[in-house]
Amino acid sequence: MMEDFSIEALRCIVGERGVITDEADLAPFCTDWRGMFKGRARCAVLPRCTAEVAAVVRLCAAARVPIVPHGGNTGLSGGATPDASGEQVILSLSRMSAIRSLDVIGETMEVEAGCILQVAQEAAADAGLLLPITLAAEGSARIGGILSTNAGGTNVLRYGMARGRVLGLEVVTADGSIVSGLRQLRKDNAGYDWKQLFIGTEGTLGIITAAVLQLAPKSRQRVTALLAVPSADEALAVLRLARQAIGETLNAFELMSGPALELVARHVGLTTPLAPAPWYVLLEASSSLPSLRDAVEEMLADVLERGAASDGVIAESEKQERELWHLRESITEAEAREGRSIKHDVSVPIALIPAFLRVADEAVMNAFPLARINAFGHAGDGNIHYNVIIPPDADSQALNRLVHDLVVDHGGSISAEHGIGQYRVDELHRCRSAPELELARRIKLALDPAGLMNPGKVLPQTIVTG
Amino acid sequence: MMEDFSIEALRCIVGERGVITDEADLAPFCTDWRGMFKGRARCAVLPRCTAEVAAVVRLCAAARVPIVPHGGNTGLSGGATPDASGEQVILSLSRMSAIRSLDVIGETMEVEAGCILQVAQEAAADAGLLLPITLAAEGSARIGGILSTNAGGTNVLRYGMARGRVLGLEVVTADGSIVSGLRQLRKDNAGYDWKQLFIGTEGTLGIITAAVLQLAPKSRQRVTALLAVPSADEALAVLRLARQAIGETLNAFELMSGPALELVARHVGLTTPLAPAPWYVLLEASSSLPSLRDAVEEMLADVLERGAASDGVIAESEKQERELWHLRESITEAEAREGRSIKHDVSVPIALIPAFLRVADEAVMNAFPLARINAFGHAGDGNIHYNVIIPPDADSQALNRLVHDLVVDHGGSISAEHGIGQYRVDELHRCRSAPELELARRIKLALDPAGLMNPGKVLPQTIVTG
Repeated sequence: MMEDFSIEALRCIVGERGVITDEADLAPFCTDWRGMFKGRARCAVLPRCTAEVAAVVRLCAAARVPIVPHGGNTGLSGGATPDASGEQVILSLSRMSAIRSLDVIGETMEVEAGCILQVAQEAAADAGLLLPITLAAEGSARIGGILSTNAGGTNVLRYGMARGRVLGLEVVTADGSIVSGLRQLRKDNAGYDWKQLFIGTEGTLGIITAAVLQLAPKSRQRVTALLAVPSADEALAVLRLARQAIGETLNAFELMSGPALELVARHVGLTTPLAPAPWYVLLEASSSLPSLRDAVEEMLADVLERGAASDGVIAESEKQERELWHLRESITEAEAREGRSIKHDVSVPIALIPAFLRVADEAVMNAFPLARINAFGHAGDGNIHYNVIIPPDADSQALNRLVHDLVVDHGGSISAEHGIGQYRVDELHRCRSAPELELARRIKLALDPAGLMNPGKVLPQTIVTG
Repeated sequence: MMEDFSIEALRCIVGERGVITDEADLAPFCTDWRGMFKGRARCAVLPRCTAEVAAVVRLCAAARVPIVPHGGNTGLSGGATPDASGEQVILSLSRMSAIRSLDVIGETMEVEAGCILQVAQEAAADAGLLLPITLAAEGSARIGGILSTNAGGTNVLRYGMARGRVLGLEVVTADGSIVSGLRQLRKDNAGYDWKQLFIGTEGTLGIITAAVLQLAPKSRQRVTALLAVPSADEALAVLRLARQAIGETLNAFELMSGPALELVARHVGLTTPLAPAPWYVLLEASSSLPSLRDAVEEMLADVLERGAASDGVIAESEKQERELWHLRESITEAEAREGRSIKHDVSVPIALIPAFLRVADEAVMNAFPLARINAFGHAGDGNIHYNVIIPPDADSQALNRLVHDLVVDHGGSISAEHGIGQYRVDELHRCRSAPELELARRIKLALDPAGLMNPGKVLPQTIVTG
């Protein structure tokens, strides 16, 4: 039986200022930051604690009102944007932003879902530790969103995805129960590790309210270098040499095409200190041990001698480090200024990156002769942002399908780190096998049988409604 | 409707030699290696490929015959031992032991579930890489068992649990479907990460048949040291100094009590090169960088100067390294020779290890005045093997409950790395919260509604049968 749902009842739970209904105030919650998706909502509700989240979920569940969890709204797939019905309630975690505790000996911190990543990073740094999740949106992205999308970023090569940082989790399930597993344990094989279900499922199974994160020791040495390389194949040769020479110290290994850096030069006015080349590698290494820089210099000399790179520079100061990273980080902005771009956040086995790029470039240029390809990304972990600048009237869905089919052919993923949200639901269901989708369906039905948790995201809504 | 089940039908699937029914041949499959659990089985079936596993599961599912997956039979919780009914079929993965491929550039390997861990380790080493899962049973344990129990071991501090090594998985689900996700991707956020459900759930949701594992660069320098420390508190002070000084290079940080090494001296005849002390720390670090040894020596000098350790020795050769590790690895054998021991594989937040040890020692000695406590373990990751040697007539269940209650009081886990199997089902259900158990129940019912996958393990059988 559906119970009455009222804004007044929500206000009783979260307080007068915890419910937003004014259209202008609501607007920022109803669109994603790229402006690709727009929806409508009954209201946004901002609980102050886990018990309030649970009460809101129970109220909505009783009235069959769907909930869209909302963090820093920095997602790239529309996962936090409501649909057009105006029936959904946005549940923002932004008022739950406390760092509950930090344990220096155990190297852990307990944070609420609304804590901004950068705030958590700074708290860890103040304690002499490192929270090794690094991404462009870290000044706005919130921990709940980071975990529910299993965020990636530039240091996955060394530290893994966000999933790997989670020791403990607190969630509110679809029926409004609080499940608390905020343990600070690196080893815990006591029963099903249910927290894995809520990480990376984009709020479709429940709402993450707090987490215990594993920190890492802070490195005392850091070396950043930019290399010009003749081909993607040679970039992989550099990667192999670097892994052999400086192994565990490699934080990031970023690949950027010559055309990508030409866009940066044109639109952002930044240029590399190296001669023009078909490809560039930006690498960063860090370590507690003092001999890091010598080892990197030796490795780069070897790379140049073998011809795997044609030129290279090591940053001599923090300022130069920032300048090198700024090149990499400006690609997205430069691309946006160049024209209409269609983004593909794909991954393939690292060894297949050159083959994938060759095949995809040829296929895209054949099908879209006016296209320009802007490929860059985290080559060290197989993640390529294979973006294509196309004329306004070109068929972007046909382009998506073309690229994604080639990704699947190469054993890859159509979403390496940006998730599915609403943007890639159809493509996911085209590209993944029936048995994999069936497992997802069973999990969804088991944990959210009424289909009220972020409906239409990741899985098609028809999975629940039949 | 239940269909006919016959040994003959199984033979049709796996071949004449793939079914074991002779009682003597079956015996090794029906008891665990510690001899704590004994059961009976209809037969053991040994498929040669994933399709045969699927066919066996379908046959059993149609006839409602329960399946007990079986790997290297090195588990410590009876997870691979059938019950007493004689109705269950043991499904051994031992004939599926291939290393299907190894990718040096991507640093991955694809292995079948029956591959012995040490064989996989050696294949990685031959390729200049490291498979960083290290445990005492590595010469017999098989990859399927390693993953389905989310094995730990001595290098979790650096490399994490077995779960973190898994990039891709192939499983056969309870209905006999093959779900293949053998992707070699470090980043893959395309939909629910269903493989997490099969890792660490001990075959209760399906059968792991193959996996893609992530390898690591092989270190070129290694340093092993043994320290004598005055207290568990000072051991943690050493840990903190080590994390600050040599951070990411620390592979293992093992804590051993004085009494534990007295047992080793008495029963195995091995002695430490250090003066007697209340506690000892065995630490191992490795790195690609040449300055590791200098950094460790400097760190140890600092530790001694501060009085966090009273004595210390660094191994000067591989032989000495092995001798130091042999002390640690002999504790289990020495304990077995001393008398009846009750093992507790627990973890607590690292900072609480000393407090837990103090409280537990006092409580145990109060309740069991004749007990002797043998505490050792992986202090660097919070995992203590808190074993207690008690007289034959002492109440081991009362002891379990006493220790586990204190573990829960300290925010710990009653099974850090050994899993639940059949040994700890009751204790798990006593110690975990109702909402956590409810989530496990829902997952089990969604993926194995008939309750035929390793019944009675991890979850009480009543969860399914009601």
